[in-house]
Amino acid sequence: MADELTGAESLVHTLVNNGIEVCFANPGTSEMHFVSALDRIDGIRPVLGLFEGVVTGAADGYARMTGQPAATLTHLGPGMANGLANLHNARKAQSPVVNVVGDHATGHQRFDAPLTADVEAFAQPVSHWVHAVRSARTVAADAARAVRAARTPPGQIATLILPADTAWSQAERPAPALPAPSPASVADTAVTESARALRRGRCALLLRGDALHGAGLRAAGSIAAATGARLVSDTFAPRVERGAGRAVVDRMPYRAADALRYLDDVETLILVGSQPPVAFFAYPDQPSELTPEHCTTLTLAHPHEDGTAALNALADAVGATGMRPPAEQCDRHEPLSSGPLDPYKIARLVSRHLPENAIISDEAITSSFGAYPLLGRAAPHDVLQCTGGAIGGGLPLATGAAIACPDRKVVSLEGDGSALYTLQALWTQAREHLDVLTIIYANRSYQVLEQELTLLGAGRPGHKAHSLLDLHNPEPNWLKLAEGMGVEAHRVDNVEALDKVLRTAMRDSHPQLIEAVI
Amino acid sequence: MADELTGAESLVHTLVNNGIEVCFANPGTSEMHFVSALDRIDGIRPVLGLFEGVVTGAADGYARMTGQPAATLTHLGPGMANGLANLHNARKAQSPVVNVVGDHATGHQRFDAPLTADVEAFAQPVSHWVHAVRSARTVAADAARAVRAARTPPGQIATLILPADTAWSQAERPAPALPAPSPASVADTAVTESARALRRGRCALLLRGDALHGAGLRAAGSIAAATGARLVSDTFAPRVERGAGRAVVDRMPYRAADALRYLDDVETLILVGSQPPVAFFAYPDQPSELTPEHCTTLTLAHPHEDGTAALNALADAVGATGMRPPAEQCDRHEPLSSGPLDPYKIARLVSRHLPENAIISDEAITSSFGAYPLLGRAAPHDVLQCTGGAIGGGLPLATGAAIACPDRKVVSLEGDGSALYTLQALWTQAREHLDVLTIIYANRSYQVLEQELTLLGAGRPGHKAHSLLDLHNPEPNWLKLAEGMGVEAHRVDNVEALDKVLRTAMRDSHPQLIEAVI
Repeated sequence: MADELTGAESLVHTLVNNGIEVCFANPGTSEMHFVSALDRIDGIRPVLGLFEGVVTGAADGYARMTGQPAATLTHLGPGMANGLANLHNARKAQSPVVNVVGDHATGHQRFDAPLTADVEAFAQPVSHWVHAVRSARTVAADAARAVRAARTPPGQIATLILPADTAWSQAERPAPALPAPSPASVADTAVTESARALRRGRCALLLRGDALHGAGLRAAGSIAAATGARLVSDTFAPRVERGAGRAVVDRMPYRAADALRYLDDVETLILVGSQPPVAFFAYPDQPSELTPEHCTTLTLAHPHEDGTAALNALADAVGATGMRPPAEQCDRHEPLSSGPLDPYKIARLVSRHLPENAIISDEAITSSFGAYPLLGRAAPHDVLQCTGGAIGGGLPLATGAAIACPDRKVVSLEGDGSALYTLQALWTQAREHLDVLTIIYANRSYQVLEQELTLLGAGRPGHKAHSLLDLHNPEPNWLKLAEGMGVEAHRVDNVEALDKVLRTAMRDSHPQLIEAVI
Repeated sequence: MADELTGAESLVHTLVNNGIEVCFANPGTSEMHFVSALDRIDGIRPVLGLFEGVVTGAADGYARMTGQPAATLTHLGPGMANGLANLHNARKAQSPVVNVVGDHATGHQRFDAPLTADVEAFAQPVSHWVHAVRSARTVAADAARAVRAARTPPGQIATLILPADTAWSQAERPAPALPAPSPASVADTAVTESARALRRGRCALLLRGDALHGAGLRAAGSIAAATGARLVSDTFAPRVERGAGRAVVDRMPYRAADALRYLDDVETLILVGSQPPVAFFAYPDQPSELTPEHCTTLTLAHPHEDGTAALNALADAVGATGMRPPAEQCDRHEPLSSGPLDPYKIARLVSRHLPENAIISDEAITSSFGAYPLLGRAAPHDVLQCTGGAIGGGLPLATGAAIACPDRKVVSLEGDGSALYTLQALWTQAREHLDVLTIIYANRSYQVLEQELTLLGAGRPGHKAHSLLDLHNPEPNWLKLAEGMGVEAHRVDNVEALDKVLRTAMRDSHPQLIEAVI
């Protein structure tokens, strides 16, 4: 059989052998042999996105929820280019992703055809690993190496460029599974030094990666319970387990001044899979580094190290193992306010109705910062943030998370400006019947920019500046946009109406969208 | 006054001094000083796009119609990334564009903030010229050089990276206009050799750039009239003047086999601003180069040379000056068919109702190839094609063309798959009250890929392959999508209805969309 395989078939077999189960795709002509191979080989579910940013963002969401890479399939340089922004987010989330990018046939590349471009150059800025396949005979080995690269801790972006002739020519047998490297062990000294700091007191643990969910977070919670240390995540963390009964993890404030104030009484900041905190943007006369001068940072685990094992060892060292952390409280039964909506009221309502084990994709930007603590009081859930600051990640993340976790409710909290970047994700949600509820915070502006303009000392916006920040004229109509993509939609502008819609929408399991006018 | 300028103000003044009149923008925090400077300095019209692909595609359309660069404004690496696909198209169209991309403040770049990325690396694959500003004191000189780079014949992509501190710090005076290089003159020998070939007969002129409109095309038409040479454009040309009374310019067939057949009786292919024809894609056992073996190519003008002057000289050399070319005929009064729509009937109807001096942005892909000759029989107009093969160019091109030419009707012919990549352009059309009519060829599929799958010998699509090519489930509803973006919409499925809607829509001057179900 092996001698009858095409390169594309050898590649797909190899991906299956190496544990790839889903391919988010927006193919073109040069990927048709790969597409055709998906038909003949079992094991990979193809999911179509109508825009490449949906494809790559969905792969990120899938990876965050499963810890496993999905494949993406895009079409030459420009197709890859459309997926780069969400690959940037995936890179910052340390998500494993395997990109397969078709290219012109090897012999065709020297001609200046319309789609000729330097695919490697497009891939490089977001990829930890890039390789252009040279022959159908090596594609299997290349693919196995690509998956291993993606699985290298803490998770990497691997891009395999597939010239059309290496997909259609005769190939060797597929490659078997290639074991992925394990995370490195943490040095004992890192544990003992961290334990010493915790005993001195005034510590905070800045958690990222595996430390923010599962066994890692439980260990961190015990440490907090035993030592009084605070737990904190970056402002934009890939995945945080939150909700009633779970350890309280603060979110680092977005504004530099607020972050410095938050860390004011911390003497040792213990880094677990994270880097020292830095400002999201620089501002005139404000610091970029957010570790206060009096505060020492101590690295318990680097991102590529086994943070969960390190936290378990640290919990043992401070005698915390098994202790119950200070936990989030549920506010499901507190009285509701009424009247017009604002981000806080929306968060309260989402918190009240969120089913157990849901996933929240949060790209509500200004509408999210203040309301974040309120969402911590919902039933236990995971929250996914816009890790790379590239707007347009939220709806695709939700899409990929729903593919990854078909039994869990996914809720997308979206600014109306943000959602417009990749609204095509709604179509994939409809096509795949995904259990995703999108809530649009319809403030009709790039509100974060209106605030930033002032913070930066750039003055009050005049007519032209305002025209670049304001979405009123015309107001995007999210009822129609959602329905145009095949997703049921509702519009509400007060607490009572949102409460009513959420009551049903949170129980239904088909994709829906609520335009919440604020 | 000069000593009170910020870098952003110095930059905006310099852009104005150097002839930039429009800035297509999707700004973020790091661009707020630039945005604010637009308020205080007259001369630049800001146009907001809700997605960066709209911004860059609009700049391309603007450049094709005016020959002048617009500025684009995007936000760091990921913002630039979202605009790359349409910059790829602009590059292949040889459109002048000046990209201003904000970056983190210089001192902030060494930190791994969420949006930190290698902006230069993102810009490189599509840019002829890239420069990262080092200081507010050099930004004016840098900007003048950027505009000159963009204006370098035949038109280039210039990318100026603007770290936030170089925008907010104190700057020097703005730079005055910097003269742009002129196109190089064509060698006399190129003219005499071409004239000799024309006298021998069996010639075709492959035209691109300025040779496809205005004085260049008129000269080419005279040459055709005098010598019997055929005029032909690339399958995807930046801008072609067509319509009743104008010289007939054939379109090179998309399929390699058809192109070879088209050139079968040509002995000399004279290149005017163009390169020898190559296949769009490679196929197993088919050639990439489309110049038949018996055919010689002869370069009259390279892309950076003055093709119009060369054609005028050539017309003189063959005694053709002033001769009237074989011209397109108008079919406005031929009888109409009736019943269900197909691409041919749509083209006939568009041709019939198109007002004089309109602009067609053509991204209808499979629906366009066969029907292209029919559109040549409309009133005189310009047609803009997807030069780089990066889908999602059409609606933004139309948007930019309408900004460039407010007194001309713009008609977007769009495949439904293609239009979904950058549908946010409709919102900009609504906001700016642009005279754009979009016609969606709603075939609910990536029809070109269904054809390609077979052509490539990849077999008939099975269930999974079909799921990656088909847009039926769910069908995008273009009525709702357009209205959701603030654009009036109509749906038609037969000749009579389309005829009726076109009759009014072609006369109205506000943005509209017609979903033509085929």
